[in-house]
Amino acid sequence: MSQVTIWTYDWVPEGPRGFVRDLRLRWACREAGVDYAVETVPFDGRETNHLARQPFGQVPYMSDGEVTLFESGACLLYLAGKSDALMPRDDGGRAETLQWLFAALNSIEMVAVPWWFVGMSGQSDNPLEPWVEKRLGQLEDVLASREWLASGRFTVADLLMADVLRVPKVREFGDRPASEAFVRKMTARPAFRAAYDEQIAQFAAVDAARA
Amino acid sequence: MSQVTIWTYDWVPEGPRGFVRDLRLRWACREAGVDYAVETVPFDGRETNHLARQPFGQVPYMSDGEVTLFESGACLLYLAGKSDALMPRDDGGRAETLQWLFAALNSIEMVAVPWWFVGMSGQSDNPLEPWVEKRLGQLEDVLASREWLASGRFTVADLLMADVLRVPKVREFGDRPASEAFVRKMTARPAFRAAYDEQIAQFAAVDAARA
Repeated sequence: MSQVTIWTYDWVPEGPRGFVRDLRLRWACREAGVDYAVETVPFDGRETNHLARQPFGQVPYMSDGEVTLFESGACLLYLAGKSDALMPRDDGGRAETLQWLFAALNSIEMVAVPWWFVGMSGQSDNPLEPWVEKRLGQLEDVLASREWLASGRFTVADLLMADVLRVPKVREFGDRPASEAFVRKMTARPAFRAAYDEQIAQFAAVDAARA
Repeated sequence: MSQVTIWTYDWVPEGPRGFVRDLRLRWACREAGVDYAVETVPFDGRETNHLARQPFGQVPYMSDGEVTLFESGACLLYLAGKSDALMPRDDGGRAETLQWLFAALNSIEMVAVPWWFVGMSGQSDNPLEPWVEKRLGQLEDVLASREWLASGRFTVADLLMADVLRVPKVREFGDRPASEAFVRKMTARPAFRAAYDEQIAQFAAVDAARA
């Protein structure tokens, strides 16, 4: 059997710990019962030192034997192909999972991340605020009406949507009880807890070794 | 054989004509030799009148027999599952196509659309400008080194990346000859031309009927 390897940074500052997106892949592997190794690339020089593996200088990227790929969404779909714990095998269930996986990235994160980025720039008016408010409200309506996004069961789409929604700035945006309950439920899953603790421990160990 | 149906608006103003994202699906169907019907939902009231089919009030969405799905990226991947004209069938080729399809949406469009949106708001300083400049530059380096994004052949990833890059504001951004050549090559494909002309003609016919 081939070996899944997940690449992340060798170290990051306190702020992003617990949010570096290799966590999505660790979490998915654990839900699927797929063993994985973790390898690292240097955080210093990250803009240019691994462009051959990830042309935008980001992490994560992964390999599985001879297959390599980047983009966390692509990696999650690839992993979903290895286990029906992440995606149903019937056509309708696959399509539902696909659409919600893309919605997490392209209807929610595509709005939330630039909104956060513009907010960080210190401008008093954030032109993306009405957009993020609308989208998070539309998603709240969906999550108020059902337990899972696709097929009435846990899928990789729930995993990714929860990872997008659990960012503190998004979590604090407005009164959205169904979205908050969804984040709490998803982050209570043992596979999430283990993946989260593993990422925190990895970076903490580097701090300890450097001290 | 099941029937693919693509939903779009019944009409849009001049500005977005030729860019409404149902075009991505029409184009992909034509590359794949998949017959499709086009159905419409009203442009007026689009924010709320079809939330049961698309919870963010957008188009396109599609159906194929009993299967329904939204998010253009999800629809494209679904269509790619029907024809190897859109995606190779070997594991490595599928992974490469997947990663570049996601990169088009999540490394390029995720930056370019909010950048355009902030620019439209009339702020003099656009905090997303350095980000879009960096990403488009990284992509230019990739496109300068190869003819196709994945597997040395046309895939649905090229289709989607070209659709993201052909937006006038993005096309005019900086001197990026490889990206411009890529857009020219992709939009010269007969399947693109036919899909484009079909969308333009659909909306023009509504104007003519109303006149």
